[in-house]
This record gives sequence, structure tokens and C-alpha cells, in this order.
Amino acid sequence: MKAEIITIGDELLNGQVVDSNSAWIAQHLGLLHIPVVHIASISDKNHAIKNALRQAEERADVIIMTGGLGPTRDDVTKATVADYFGTTLIRNEAVLAHVEAIFRRRGRKSMPAMNIGQADVLANAAVLFNDVGTAPGMAIERNGKYFVFLPGVPFEMKFLMENRVLPMLRNTYKSEVFVYNTYLLTVGIGESHLAEQIADIEDALPPFITLAYLPRIGMVRLRFTSEGRDMEALASITNSFKEQVAERLIDHVVSVDNRSFEEVLVQTFTDSGITLSTAESCTGGSISAQITAVPGASQMFQGAAVVYSNQAKMDVLGVLPDTLTQYGAVSESTVKEMAEGARRVFGTDYAIATSGIAGPGGGTETKPVGTVCIAVSGKSETRTQTFHFKNDRAINIERTVIAGLTMLWNLLK
Amino acid sequence: MKAEIITIGDELLNGQVVDSNSAWIAQHLGLLHIPVVHIASISDKNHAIKNALRQAEERADVIIMTGGLGPTRDDVTKATVADYFGTTLIRNEAVLAHVEAIFRRRGRKSMPAMNIGQADVLANAAVLFNDVGTAPGMAIERNGKYFVFLPGVPFEMKFLMENRVLPMLRNTYKSEVFVYNTYLLTVGIGESHLAEQIADIEDALPPFITLAYLPRIGMVRLRFTSEGRDMEALASITNSFKEQVAERLIDHVVSVDNRSFEEVLVQTFTDSGITLSTAESCTGGSISAQITAVPGASQMFQGAAVVYSNQAKMDVLGVLPDTLTQYGAVSESTVKEMAEGARRVFGTDYAIATSGIAGPGGGTETKPVGTVCIAVSGKSETRTQTFHFKNDRAINIERTVIAGLTMLWNLLK
Repeated sequence: MKAEIITIGDELLNGQVVDSNSAWIAQHLGLLHIPVVHIASISDKNHAIKNALRQAEERADVIIMTGGLGPTRDDVTKATVADYFGTTLIRNEAVLAHVEAIFRRRGRKSMPAMNIGQADVLANAAVLFNDVGTAPGMAIERNGKYFVFLPGVPFEMKFLMENRVLPMLRNTYKSEVFVYNTYLLTVGIGESHLAEQIADIEDALPPFITLAYLPRIGMVRLRFTSEGRDMEALASITNSFKEQVAERLIDHVVSVDNRSFEEVLVQTFTDSGITLSTAESCTGGSISAQITAVPGASQMFQGAAVVYSNQAKMDVLGVLPDTLTQYGAVSESTVKEMAEGARRVFGTDYAIATSGIAGPGGGTETKPVGTVCIAVSGKSETRTQTFHFKNDRAINIERTVIAGLTMLWNLLK
Repeated sequence: MKAEIITIGDELLNGQVVDSNSAWIAQHLGLLHIPVVHIASISDKNHAIKNALRQAEERADVIIMTGGLGPTRDDVTKATVADYFGTTLIRNEAVLAHVEAIFRRRGRKSMPAMNIGQADVLANAAVLFNDVGTAPGMAIERNGKYFVFLPGVPFEMKFLMENRVLPMLRNTYKSEVFVYNTYLLTVGIGESHLAEQIADIEDALPPFITLAYLPRIGMVRLRFTSEGRDMEALASITNSFKEQVAERLIDHVVSVDNRSFEEVLVQTFTDSGITLSTAESCTGGSISAQITAVPGASQMFQGAAVVYSNQAKMDVLGVLPDTLTQYGAVSESTVKEMAEGARRVFGTDYAIATSGIAGPGGGTETKPVGTVCIAVSGKSETRTQTFHFKNDRAINIERTVIAGLTMLWNLLK
């Protein structure tokens, strides 16, 4: 049982939009042990759609196509797909009533005529009713292959996957061979040094377990994947190898499941009943935004002060004028006072503070672009460190976020 | 002259990582008028790599493959590609010296043995020297088709594209047929209503101009694409249609070029010499992070107060205890005081404030998940509005960010 994902849209091919739908779909198929073997992004042209369907049918048993179902005239998907399956489009009255109701609910006087076409579905398809949007999904089974067509708007696609497609797949396709995935997240060690440290364990892996290195900025995630017929035995032996690796890398492991670094930190703070705040200059609120993106963060996170100007650093966080004059805004002395100021202002047990030159402008001879000072402050100690990143603005900011969270995590231990 | 992008890695197929490389590459090829006709994400398996190369060669003239060049043993790309081109791998001494130097510079005692293999390149390839990482890129020309192999780490890929691949393509491939793209960004109007309002202009478009609707949360970007041999004439006629559309949608157009909403706001504030701050509860610093991601934002952006707790709302922003007691944290009265407090604390001309229930927890009967209050405050006026979003946490936060920026933009006008 294998799957293929096809995403349609010129906005994907010209780079205007990053295809995030595929990763979401792949994750959720993975939970059903249906591996994705191929992802393609194609144009909404007749021949591109037909070729992609033909090739997908050769490789996979479940083919999920997203996009190209909108009301505007740049969408030709439905007619092409009808042609591919040798069928026609028919108007679905239930869908039409639903689309009309959506426009009424939005308080619009009338529904644009072009939306009527959204109620047209393939004559031989099961209609996947879309509660949260105007474009219905469709499903067709042919020669044991299962085709699904979904709108490209992410939350509509997700609604239809969660409520229509995944339940159906869960019932229909019960695989004999299981795929088991398990993860380890490490920080503060590079991919090749990490690999060297665990080379003997990796060499001892049986052939049905594979280990993959997934490096990201400042972290490496390890994925153990195994395949077999006995899910319990599979999980047990895979986990025993994972535990060996976790023990070897004890200083670097932040998560032994599939949680993100932020999720681990929010959980740790919440479980311990301790609180966090941030004082951010060059990260501009990114640490705060990433922490508060985790559901339930409001218990452990009290607030952030984004202080771009020197005035704000003094007014909001009580940084001393002398410190700014003597050492400058980008200095370990300043971030120390920022972190301690944040703990005081927000009344928190811990705080992270950042100040740096993210670029592209603002660099000087002594403090070039990429110079970043970070402080983490707890009850008994404030630690500071200076970093010299050498990337563009977005990556310098992201590196600073990860470095700050890593320093906090080390202070917590 | 057409291009195809192939990205390699099981982390893409299982959804662990979103493929953002393809969009970046496609954007930059677009600037050279080289359209991408297909994007594929594949496994790092021998047959998948060979099939992908074979199919790409049929569709495209420039084939760019990223990923699968790391030092760890989950990478088999180079050997497979050598086989595909009927060649072998040879050690490149300059690359080896470079890789060794990188490890020395990082202060490591020794280079892991597995990194030696990174200096092995295809015997018939031009080596694309990688100044910022250990894996070199490679380029091969065969039968008029140009193949490029790049590491998957985004900043290494970008370095090699910008410094090696794009300059070469710019020199070699001078197309006779130009593709001209131009954009309009709108906020506060849905895709189908927008389409209805400009239907007559769209109907009048000549066949060589196409119009695409690229909806995102809270905004729709319009892309006009035209093809022809006379670049100047092409730009002129396409822009004349775009101007008609911009005039029709005057109340909704925020950008007539390819800039983001944040970039337009940063530019507008900077040009007018006015300043901004934010007071964020449910958005957790996301507005601040998005604004400060724009290079040069430090001139117009003074700071943000992320105030999750009621205490912080009072202490940092001076929200009155009575207001919180009488109306609650999620109320138009509270966000009004938050916005005015931010203007006072940060000394700015304008401020945005948010407070809401992003979910999944925290909803009540009278204020269910998705209830969000936003205020925008300027010198002469503070406006407030309550929204009822109905999505998951991440989307509720993103909708609040866009709604806040839209309210600010309307206040500025």
C-alpha cells in the first residue's frame, strides 16, 4: 500500500507559494502506515494533469491530488479529470445548496455566478462534502486504486482529509506489513559528529531498521524506520536501539518522541510549575511567537518585551543608560540586564534575552552582521554568550532563536 | 527553455520537512524567464532517482536536483547519478582541503572519516565549489540538457544557486521568448467576489496574458503572466491591464508589485517618518516577528509588549484593573487600552493590539475559541473590532495578524 501526492498550481511552480499541503498529508498517511513514495507539483494544464495521474497510477495505490478546484477560471482540473476517467460532470444539488448557504451566511446579497460551477462533480465520484468551504472533494475507486481530489486551500484540505479521507482509508486498507517510525531530537551537535559518535550502534542495526539524519538549523532529528509484520516486536526492537543512541547522546537529546523543541520546553516548564518571559531585540518576537504557538503555552509563558530602540530597552526593561553607552546595545552586559529586567517586569522564574545585528544593514567593523549576544537568566544564575552567525537576516534570526532555547535548556538541566 | 526541480529525501516524503527549496529555486529561475514545469520530491533510492532523472529529461532542459549529498550513510545519490551518466566518482583534492579546513575552523580536533567522501565528485562534472558547507555541487551538460546537483541544506543550496548556477544560466541561456510576470496584492475581499468585480477586464485580456488568483489567509494575490518576443511591449500592455484592475479594486489593493503586506507597511511607515509598536496577547509576538523580519524595520518599529497575563497587561501597558474585571481580557475595551498603552510606552505614532482565544483550550459559552478583539491606534483615533474565527490555533493566530495589519492599513489611509 503506497501513496502519491500531486499538487496543482502555477503558484507552486513559479515559487510564489511553498507547498506545505504535501508534508501535512504525508504525515497523516504515515500515521496509517501508508508511505508516500512520490510527490509532484504540476501545472493546471490538461496534459500535465493527465500525465501525472498516469504516472502516479503506476507507482501508487492511493493518489491524492490537491488544488485546481477553485471558482475562478484559472482552474481546469475537474474537466480534465472527468476526461481522464471517461466520465462527465454533473451538478450536485446538495453541494449547490451548501455553497449558496455559505454566501448567505457571509451576509453577501448574492452568490457570484461562477460559484455555481463548484457544485459540479464527477458523475462516478463519491462526493466528499466540504463543511468549511465551497469546493467539494471527490473520491473515485478504479482497478483497486483509490483517487482523491481535494481543494488546495490548506484548512479545507485538512478538514476533508481528517473527516472524509483518513477515516475511509483507516477502514478500507488494513496493511499486513507495518511501518514503525520513531524519533530523537538533538541540539548543539553537527550531523557528522553525531553520526561518528553512534557509528557502532548504526552498524549493528538489523536490515529492517533504517536510520535517517534530518538536519535543521541548530538541530538534528534522527528517525528510525522499521518494517515488519509484528507491530509490537517491531516497536520493541527499534526502541531498544533508539535508547542506546539516546544514552550515548545524553547531553544533546531534547526529545525522544516527535515533539518539537518548543513543545518539549512548554511541557517541561508547565510540569515544573515554572514560568518564562523573553526580552527580544534582533529576534523581534520570534522566540515568543514560537513558544506561544504551542497550545497551552499561556500557563508557563507570561510575556515578552520586544525592545528595538535603546529607549525601550531602558524604559521597559530597566537597562542602565551607562551599560548601553559603555558596551553598546549588542553586548553581553546589555542582554544580561535585559534578561534580568524581563524576569522582574513579568515576574517569571526564567527569561531569555537577545540582541544582535541580523542584517543585511547595521554591521560595523567590530560588530559585523551576524554578531548576536544572548542571555538566559534563572533564579540562581544568568549566563551570557556571544555568537558570530554568517547568514542572511532570516537565518540569523532563526539561529538566534534556537541558540537561545538551547542555552535555556542547558540552564534548566 | 524549461526547468524541472527534483528534491530528494525521505524526510520530504514522510512530511517531516516541508520542501521550501523548490519555491526558492523556482522564483529565481523565474527571474531569468526560465519557467519550472514540474517539481518532484522523491526517495533517495536508486530506482527513484533514475526514474526521476529520466522523466525530467523528457520534460525539461534544465534539471536541478537537491538533497542526498550529506556525509551520513543515508545518502546514495552520488553513486546513483554516476551510474546514470555512465561515469565514476573521483576524489577532488581542492574540495577535500576545503572540507578539512572547515572542520579545523570549527575547532574540531579531527574530521570524521565519513566526510572524506564529500570530496568525491562525478568524473565528468564541473564542480560547484561550496564556500559555506562541506558538500560541493556538480553540473553536467549532456545532449543540450543541463543537470545540476546541489546539497539540500537551504543556505548551502542558495549560496550555490546565487554564486554558481544562476550566473551560468544567465550567460548560457538567452531566450527568444520572454515571460513577464506582474502582481497585485489585495486584502479584505474574497476570491470569487474579487473575480466578479473584474470579470469584464479579465474577459478582455488577449490570449497571451493569463490571470491567476493566489488566495492566502485574508488576502488574494493576482498574477498576470504574459509571453512574447518583445519584452518592452509585453510589459507595457500587461501593466495597462493591471492598472485597470488596480483602479477597480482601489479599496483593497495594498501592493502593485511583488512585495508582501509587511514590506509595504514597513516602507510606508519609513517613507512617512512614522513609527509603530504592538501589544500582543493571542498573537504572542507574531505581528512583531513578521514586521521585524523585513530588513530595515528597525527604523519604524520601536517594540512590542507580549502580555499573556492580566498582570502584565496592567504592569507593562497600564491597562486598568477595572477594565479587565468588567469586560475581561478579550474585549474591545481592553485592546483599546493595550494599543494606547503601547503607543505611550514605546512612544510611537501607531500601535496594534490583539487579545483573543486562539484555542484549542480557553473557550467559553460567550467567548468561544476564535473570538478575537483587535485595536489599532493612531494620533487622532483608536479603532476596535471583534472577530469570530473558526479555525485551529495556528490559523486563528495568522488570521489575527492579517486582520490587525489590514485595520492598521485602513487607519493609515
